[in-house]
Amino acid sequence: MKAHIHITLKKGVLDPEGKAIGNALGSLGFDGVDGVRKGKYITLDIAEADEDKALKQVTQMCEKLLANTVIEDYAIKLEA
Amino acid sequence: MKAHIHITLKKGVLDPEGKAIGNALGSLGFDGVDGVRKGKYITLDIAEADEDKALKQVTQMCEKLLANTVIEDYAIKLEA
Repeated sequence: MKAHIHITLKKGVLDPEGKAIGNALGSLGFDGVDGVRKGKYITLDIAEADEDKALKQVTQMCEKLLANTVIEDYAIKLEA
Repeated sequence: MKAHIHITLKKGVLDPEGKAIGNALGSLGFDGVDGVRKGKYITLDIAEADEDKALKQVTQMCEKLLANTVIEDYAIKLEA
C-alpha cells in the first residue's frame, strides 16, 4: 500500500522559506503572488495491506518522526 | 486562485533524504517500509482568476524557479 503524506506548517507559524520563494517570484516578474507556504511531501510503500492498520501505522510514523507536531500538521492519503 | 504544487525527484534519481527517513523508520521499529521519497509541497495564492492563464503562470514559476527540471518533476493543481 502506498502512503502519501503532506506535512505543512501550522497556520500562524512563520514560513521564512515560503517568504523567500515569494520574494524570488516577485523579482522574476511574477506579480500577484501571495501567501507562499512550503511543506514536505513524503511517499512510501508499506507492507501492511489492511487500510485501518496502515493508517494507524503511518499516523504513528508522523507523530514519532516525520512531523514536528508542535509546529506542523500532517495529512495522510492511502492508495491501494 | 490557490495553487498546490508537488515537486518530486524523477524516477531513478537517488533520494538520500528519503533513504535516511526510511532508515530512521526502520530503527524506530517500523517494519515493511520501502521506497521512501521526499519531495516538496508548495501552496500559493495568485491573483489571476482565469484558470488557463493561472496554470500557464504557475507552470512558468515551476520551470524558472521552483523545480530543477533536470532531476525533478512537478505537478500543479489549481483550486478556485
